[in-house]
Amino acid sequence: MADLRIGMIGYGFMARAHSNAYRKVSNFFPVKRKPVLQVACARNEASARSFADTWGYQTIETDWQKLVQRDDVDAVDICAPNNLHCEVALAAAKAGKMILCEKPLAMDVEQGRQMVEAVKKARVPNMVWYNYRRVPAVTMAKELIEAGKLGRIFHFRAKFLQDWTMSADLPQGGQGLWRLDVGAAGSGVTGDLLAHCIDTARWLNGEVDQVSAMTETFIKERKHNLTGKVEPVGIDDACAFLARFQNGSLATFESTRYARGHKAQYVFEINGQHASIAWDLQEMHRLEYFDHRDEGPLRGWRSIHVTDGEHPYMSHWWVPGLQIGYEHSFVHGVADFLEGLETGRAAQPDFADALATQRVCQAVLESARQGKWVKV
Amino acid sequence: MADLRIGMIGYGFMARAHSNAYRKVSNFFPVKRKPVLQVACARNEASARSFADTWGYQTIETDWQKLVQRDDVDAVDICAPNNLHCEVALAAAKAGKMILCEKPLAMDVEQGRQMVEAVKKARVPNMVWYNYRRVPAVTMAKELIEAGKLGRIFHFRAKFLQDWTMSADLPQGGQGLWRLDVGAAGSGVTGDLLAHCIDTARWLNGEVDQVSAMTETFIKERKHNLTGKVEPVGIDDACAFLARFQNGSLATFESTRYARGHKAQYVFEINGQHASIAWDLQEMHRLEYFDHRDEGPLRGWRSIHVTDGEHPYMSHWWVPGLQIGYEHSFVHGVADFLEGLETGRAAQPDFADALATQRVCQAVLESARQGKWVKV
Amino acid sequence: MADLRIGMIGYGFMARAHSNAYRKVSNFFPVKRKPVLQVACARNEASARSFADTWGYQTIETDWQKLVQRDDVDAVDICAPNNLHCEVALAAAKAGKMILCEKPLAMDVEQGRQMVEAVKKARVPNMVWYNYRRVPAVTMAKELIEAGKLGRIFHFRAKFLQDWTMSADLPQGGQGLWRLDVGAAGSGVTGDLLAHCIDTARWLNGEVDQVSAMTETFIKERKHNLTGKVEPVGIDDACAFLARFQNGSLATFESTRYARGHKAQYVFEINGQHASIAWDLQEMHRLEYFDHRDEGPLRGWRSIHVTDGEHPYMSHWWVPGLQIGYEHSFVHGVADFLEGLETGRAAQPDFADALATQRVCQAVLESARQGKWVKV
Amino acid sequence: MADLRIGMIGYGFMARAHSNAYRKVSNFFPVKRKPVLQVACARNEASARSFADTWGYQTIETDWQKLVQRDDVDAVDICAPNNLHCEVALAAAKAGKMILCEKPLAMDVEQGRQMVEAVKKARVPNMVWYNYRRVPAVTMAKELIEAGKLGRIFHFRAKFLQDWTMSADLPQGGQGLWRLDVGAAGSGVTGDLLAHCIDTARWLNGEVDQVSAMTETFIKERKHNLTGKVEPVGIDDACAFLARFQNGSLATFESTRYARGHKAQYVFEINGQHASIAWDLQEMHRLEYFDHRDEGPLRGWRSIHVTDGEHPYMSHWWVPGLQIGYEHSFVHGVADFLEGLETGRAAQPDFADALATQRVCQAVLESARQGKWVKV
Repeated sequence: MADLRIGMIGYGFMARAHSNAYRKVSNFFPVKRKPVLQVACARNEASARSFADTWGYQTIETDWQKLVQRDDVDAVDICAPNNLHCEVALAAAKAGKMILCEKPLAMDVEQGRQMVEAVKKARVPNMVWYNYRRVPAVTMAKELIEAGKLGRIFHFRAKFLQDWTMSADLPQGGQGLWRLDVGAAGSGVTGDLLAHCIDTARWLNGEVDQVSAMTETFIKERKHNLTGKVEPVGIDDACAFLARFQNGSLATFESTRYARGHKAQYVFEINGQHASIAWDLQEMHRLEYFDHRDEGPLRGWRSIHVTDGEHPYMSHWWVPGLQIGYEHSFVHGVADFLEGLETGRAAQPDFADALATQRVCQAVLESARQGKWVKV
Repeated sequence: MADLRIGMIGYGFMARAHSNAYRKVSNFFPVKRKPVLQVACARNEASARSFADTWGYQTIETDWQKLVQRDDVDAVDICAPNNLHCEVALAAAKAGKMILCEKPLAMDVEQGRQMVEAVKKARVPNMVWYNYRRVPAVTMAKELIEAGKLGRIFHFRAKFLQDWTMSADLPQGGQGLWRLDVGAAGSGVTGDLLAHCIDTARWLNGEVDQVSAMTETFIKERKHNLTGKVEPVGIDDACAFLARFQNGSLATFESTRYARGHKAQYVFEINGQHASIAWDLQEMHRLEYFDHRDEGPLRGWRSIHVTDGEHPYMSHWWVPGLQIGYEHSFVHGVADFLEGLETGRAAQPDFADALATQRVCQAVLESARQGKWVKV
Repeated sequence: MADLRIGMIGYGFMARAHSNAYRKVSNFFPVKRKPVLQVACARNEASARSFADTWGYQTIETDWQKLVQRDDVDAVDICAPNNLHCEVALAAAKAGKMILCEKPLAMDVEQGRQMVEAVKKARVPNMVWYNYRRVPAVTMAKELIEAGKLGRIFHFRAKFLQDWTMSADLPQGGQGLWRLDVGAAGSGVTGDLLAHCIDTARWLNGEVDQVSAMTETFIKERKHNLTGKVEPVGIDDACAFLARFQNGSLATFESTRYARGHKAQYVFEINGQHASIAWDLQEMHRLEYFDHRDEGPLRGWRSIHVTDGEHPYMSHWWVPGLQIGYEHSFVHGVADFLEGLETGRAAQPDFADALATQRVCQAVLESARQGKWVKV
Repeated sequence: MADLRIGMIGYGFMARAHSNAYRKVSNFFPVKRKPVLQVACARNEASARSFADTWGYQTIETDWQKLVQRDDVDAVDICAPNNLHCEVALAAAKAGKMILCEKPLAMDVEQGRQMVEAVKKARVPNMVWYNYRRVPAVTMAKELIEAGKLGRIFHFRAKFLQDWTMSADLPQGGQGLWRLDVGAAGSGVTGDLLAHCIDTARWLNGEVDQVSAMTETFIKERKHNLTGKVEPVGIDDACAFLARFQNGSLATFESTRYARGHKAQYVFEINGQHASIAWDLQEMHRLEYFDHRDEGPLRGWRSIHVTDGEHPYMSHWWVPGLQIGYEHSFVHGVADFLEGLETGRAAQPDFADALATQRVCQAVLESARQGKWVKV
């Protein structure tokens, strides 16, 4: 079958992670359709050229509008800042391209709705890169829940803690810092980090019914890289919320960029009737598991080193005991997307599913603004 | 100086912990006034006798009213269920006895207020047994904060998770199970477990400004041991709340008895500008500490084994590396109470301080009932 | 039944640990014969008096020869330095006293043999305080092995690491430092620390067949507190050895006082056909357990919080999740010794069993001296 | 500059790891000379073809003799079983090819000596793939030692524990199982696993002076895949040894394939005068560090998440907090080899350095055979 020719929009951190995934997938997974790095796009030609050289893209563009029209592109990968997701996606869908869009889906629910409609109308395969679903330990959590190991779920809790923006000297805006600029990012930790937690939570625990949230911006003004002026900070530095899920479970969520000592501590824990599971991104190759059905005195949290051939995705990598890392979750994403093209069962989350996560994010921000519980 | 003659009301778990503390304190701490186990009181004479024999109490009573009137009692220790705290304390204060009351202070703020007034009027030394302040690692957390190691505090989070009431067959009420009976306990995890978290939080992080809470009772009816009938369950099985502290920090609190795999996981974490600290009751002899001022590449969470002579309280025990346990926090409580008698600086929390914790508990329950933010 | 009147020889660290155990045991265990602190003995009268006051000993002696002759003493507890064990034990046995002797049994195998003979001849109950057998997690390890959970054992490894003697300024000899004086201690880490490891190993894994050892004294001379002069250091600062057990398993042992960062890291691990177990004194309330018979993908090391009522000894203490500490292992020792008096099944290790450990220690030192394998 | 055309001999686990490294290195490191996957070689043509297709090798060979003669090959990578290393290397050196040889260098010291001589004579760049030196946390350990953070080193200890060969049904010999066939592997855990430990130890702690070892083969006979018959097992299933290093430090080493619960637990710990470090392959992105110069009560083992830009190699990968895995150590190997070609400072270990490790392995096996200490 034909290769899958990728047009990449963006050249930052995420563009690297995706490019690496496209390059590696066929070395480790028996894919029928092999990704080819066809076009790299950046507004600045030198940036595009340099990125293309490093990764082996065959050509470059400096205008994403041209990229989405090219005949030699089968799939458009959107790694541009959040405020471009919608516009690019609508154009790509219109041009009949498959779309792989970095998360969060959009700036808000309204944009997300348009994007879902566009891909539906164009009938193009689409996926959003919520990569943590495909960390083997997280995928395994899903399998355990589906197999009924946990029974009724009582509690879900998630945190995503960082500390990289604590300095008041850090500016906002521009390459590498657009996540601090509300105009480009839409929100702060809610869209950047909690969106991951919410995606995982919805996948593992079903839909959220209502939320009560609070947000805070600890540093109120920062120099803006694009204007050169000190400007108000529009993003949330921290956000915490209570949630009730439709299955009756209670949940707490928290994210911040002001938690000293945590570079990327994304943890979740789920407490069920029979068993509990916990995971921490900082030891991403482990799943903690407690089973109440174990023999009484021998009950204890098991620290499962998720590197065996019988663990999700792991038969494709090395041998038991040898861990994979962050980047592999993206390789799994590509592998699943490609398999979805074969089987017709689209890899998740697609745009429609990611829209549901966007709804929760919006309800969270709304709840924080109003200081009251909000139905999703 | 004269001994301190103790009149103990109650003979359950807490009465054991306190009795042990009174017996041990003078073996390890240079106390001037040595506690003497004078009277043990239980409604049932056989229970009182058995408890007195085990612990070496010299006499017994079956009526607490008589105990508080005895001339040979200097201090009354209240280990009866929560719904008796107020009545006993008022009588003991009136009789001029010192009072050491198990937590939480009372059934509600109104009772607490009366108790504070009574001890003030009677000018009797008083203390509430929030023992976790005196786990050496927790005391050390306080010292680090006071020494400015953390700087401005951004986040506080605490959880107290258990799983012992998950069976629907467990009845409510009566000896050992009064904590499940709202009439005896006043509330569920909020007064039993979150009260501990709130006491520690207020001590370490100052006063709470406002809260948004949710509670849940997963099993709605249980057989009542006292009536023999199946009755509605009035306590909260789980409670989670968001809080804003007066110092501007954000906090999350959660407690439940439906968290499989956790017998008594009381953890807290505090994130400051310069450093963070974390503690877990299940490894209570350790304090986790991260200091951003450490040399860059060598930054990491330090796992401090709080067993050195220079750690709080530890010079009184064994040698470095050898851990103490749960019961020792009560010994420290007695030691501090006795020292307070000498110095005139009352050991904390006294009734007045514990009343402030009661106010937060009440605000939490109120917020959950009303589904909105409540000012403390 | 009559009380058990204790005559304590020594007033240092171990004398405190034992005294505490005698005082507490009847509060927590249903003992028939209650220990009474009858006589405390130290060469210096003020020391004896102060120790007796702190712990509630009724009388004092300054001459251990008198103590062992007293009619009001049922059992002699030997907490004097190692070089006195033999002489005191022989006299106590001759006087018909029960003997509880601190470990190691003696200075060498020859002394130990005399001691065993003496207690046999006198038919007096006797025990050596290898307390770590009675840490609940360690006792549980024994139960698991006896229940066949591990199957055939392939490997045993133990380490006991400390760092308290690394300073060259530390003198040797005298109160608190006699462990550094070969004349009082007999050896360094071998008798002080490895003896514990060997006792546990023999208990769990059977007898040692042969060993190959090396020892080192890193600091060759230290001021001697008794002579005031700089003298050669005769003890081993570090000792490591290979061992083959009679059951065919291979073992490694290591102890040192030059391991920065370890106050008292006594760890052992046992690998069996079906399961493995591991324990660390610094988290003494936990047992790590791996069972290969668990469902494949869910295999992992379980961290068992050994605080449940169904765990060894724990039903006597608090509630699940609340840990006990170092001192409790001695309480268990007294409880078992007392139970042994009732049942006639002597608590272990008795002198005869401790002699077998002494034999291994001697073979280890011999192997290090000769630089070759030595049969035990 | 010209590309570096690779001729790969072998198509198993290691051939995959190396091929992946060649493919990725230029995406992440600014290499001047880019590896090109030129020829894949396997005795079986279908295997060679399949491997070449998966990894993108441009051509294949079925005879390694031809491969080493090809003009379009700059560097030969030896991933064949150990018993072929010497012969292939001698031929490749003679043909003037650079050589990257999988570890251990050879079957014995004699072979190793010939290989060193051959590459010296041919003046060809050469390297042995002891990849664990290039796990960032391990490289960081080296940097800390070189910076004097540890001071004088007293102790080194290493273990490499596995459990994959415990079943008696596992045959020996042939593809995937040649490591169990002494004829192909030369030894068991000594050459396969301890060789890694020894390489790291020599790198970090200098040369070994003497050793005392023991080995064991728990399962004495296994079916041989090549002959179809049950044959004696010639490899060591387990090996432990004591060592004295030239710097005066004491060491223990152990490896086994009979340690239930350990897939690949390679751990080492180093205790120095001022600081200690520890590392575990199963959490390979962490370095544990204890510094005695930290403020007294705040001393503790720091768990360093080695994922910051200032950590070795990590600026080339993702962002702080996101871990890399096993395969990356090979990418670093290629990056360093290529850099060595530029700078003329050959990446280590080269053949000569790996020969020193081979000497220690041989002394270990010799010591076990003779049952006595052996000088290296």
